[in-house]
Amino acid sequence: MKRTVNRRWLIARRPVGAVTTGDFRYDEQPIPEPGDGEILVRSLYFAYDASQRLWMTEEGGYLPPIPLGEPMRAMGIGQVAKSRHPAYAVGDLVEGMLSWQDYVSVRVSDQWPMRVLPKANYPLTWNESVFGVSGLTAYFAVADVLGVRPGDVVVVSAATGATGYLAAGICKALGASKVIGIAGGPEKCKWIVQTAGYDDAIDYKNDDIGAKLAGLCPDGVDAYFDNVGGDILDTVLHHMKPMGRVVICGAMASDYSTSYMPGPKNFYEILLKMLTVKGILLLFYRDRMQEGAERLAEWVKEGRLPVIETIVEGFEKAPGLLPTMFAGKRPGKLLLKVGEPA
Amino acid sequence: MKRTVNRRWLIARRPVGAVTTGDFRYDEQPIPEPGDGEILVRSLYFAYDASQRLWMTEEGGYLPPIPLGEPMRAMGIGQVAKSRHPAYAVGDLVEGMLSWQDYVSVRVSDQWPMRVLPKANYPLTWNESVFGVSGLTAYFAVADVLGVRPGDVVVVSAATGATGYLAAGICKALGASKVIGIAGGPEKCKWIVQTAGYDDAIDYKNDDIGAKLAGLCPDGVDAYFDNVGGDILDTVLHHMKPMGRVVICGAMASDYSTSYMPGPKNFYEILLKMLTVKGILLLFYRDRMQEGAERLAEWVKEGRLPVIETIVEGFEKAPGLLPTMFAGKRPGKLLLKVGEPA
Repeated sequence: MKRTVNRRWLIARRPVGAVTTGDFRYDEQPIPEPGDGEILVRSLYFAYDASQRLWMTEEGGYLPPIPLGEPMRAMGIGQVAKSRHPAYAVGDLVEGMLSWQDYVSVRVSDQWPMRVLPKANYPLTWNESVFGVSGLTAYFAVADVLGVRPGDVVVVSAATGATGYLAAGICKALGASKVIGIAGGPEKCKWIVQTAGYDDAIDYKNDDIGAKLAGLCPDGVDAYFDNVGGDILDTVLHHMKPMGRVVICGAMASDYSTSYMPGPKNFYEILLKMLTVKGILLLFYRDRMQEGAERLAEWVKEGRLPVIETIVEGFEKAPGLLPTMFAGKRPGKLLLKVGEPA
Repeated sequence: MKRTVNRRWLIARRPVGAVTTGDFRYDEQPIPEPGDGEILVRSLYFAYDASQRLWMTEEGGYLPPIPLGEPMRAMGIGQVAKSRHPAYAVGDLVEGMLSWQDYVSVRVSDQWPMRVLPKANYPLTWNESVFGVSGLTAYFAVADVLGVRPGDVVVVSAATGATGYLAAGICKALGASKVIGIAGGPEKCKWIVQTAGYDDAIDYKNDDIGAKLAGLCPDGVDAYFDNVGGDILDTVLHHMKPMGRVVICGAMASDYSTSYMPGPKNFYEILLKMLTVKGILLLFYRDRMQEGAERLAEWVKEGRLPVIETIVEGFEKAPGLLPTMFAGKRPGKLLLKVGEPA
């Protein structure tokens, strides 16, 4: 049955603290008509990212804030339903910034790219769960910012996350001698070793992280992939080797309710050990996306990278899934299926 | 008159907060005899460095703490009075780690080097005030860690300090288009522009630093040479350009009473703008000292780097001078003369 209305989930209010379903409002509108130079994309999958919480704030973070009353922004996969842009044909499968509505009219630009997906012999969702923002961020964080090289001892926090779970395989592919993941609870710790390819796990809910690090890497840590900030960052900094490297990729210790996060308590560690601390934001790798996707594809093909995704179905579930991502209930990438490709 | 006793200033107690003269105790001992492989150095100049305060703590910082009851450690210039080491001859002028005593018996090692000073046509003190720790730190911080390049807009805090005052000339020599110094009070601000070669000054005691930065560098800051930490670091981070670089060189906002310093309040800036924040410690440049000294010498010769030093005389003044350095009363390098070369 062809849909005739455009279902939408709008931001009803700026959330305070953790995001809740009450922060969104449902609405139906006519399906929009693309203007000249625009394409109409029918949504198939919405991806879940911690950044979405930041975009809901007044500051927005690295992208402008989503205006109140507008559809919630989300990375996603869709199919071109109408095209008034020469580079896109009806039926093309595309990946890029969508929003929580069945149909979105997109004005493609350098700032707002929409890539046409290649015909491929792997599941469509992999374009989000490994060749999308999370995977590419993991790739450039490990290969470029941390510059992981043979023999490195690497620590990764939020190791079950959509980015963190891929870091072990990428580090190993680049020759790291040991990759230690930090996760919450014995079940997740077992998962990151058995499924995500970590050598060892530290359970931040039950272990003394410092003591465990001292035991697992008595000579210290060469590279730390930080997805959490807070106390865990403090502890790992203390166990870094001189000249160690740290990438700041996320801040799961906060609730992303503001783009303001306190720095490490012991900032002197950076000076005394001459550490390098660098942020990562995929926007700065716009020109190297292809390289990243090709390396990742190669490693997936060689069996070095597992692809872990949780796919939930049903447009009505869009708001309710967002808080579950912050609760970290499922490892890997969380996706919502909202349509079938034609 | 040839001295027959060895005057010494010992650490009497671990200071609490700011260091005071009461933290030291005077004492006289016979002049030591160097053991096999050691040299006896007669002290000529003691240099003052903020790190000295750290070495007085229980932690020590990047060097072991100075034991209570031992002479206070200081970089300095001396002359070899006796030698039982083949690489040193009586009369050689040397620079390295001394302590607050007339004579110190030194066991030279890779960890504890003592360089023989070249015969040169410049004042002996320049080996501390520009070719010593402060100048070499400024050189490697600017040329290597920040990698200052043509067109860069650079900001330097504690711009009247022994390291900071040299940064402007080094940045300019490497092609920076604008170098802005941060200092306390109108007099110091005038000094850094007129004497130290800064293009502009921000008075942290009277100016709104953020507003001034926005006015002076509307496109943002490429590189920040941080000697202070604290609120000023927070403000400058907010004005960094995307992909900007920061070197953490000092923490004058603290009193160096502990090697524990809170990090920036807005750590997210590092992620959102993909900044690089790196510490500097000269120990890591052991193999490149010669290169640094040569570049600095060249720039001094070409008139690009002023040499600013304050020389106070009198062994008895050693403890009293240390607090004045933290008060920042005199620009440039602070030295105490305690002897004449033979």
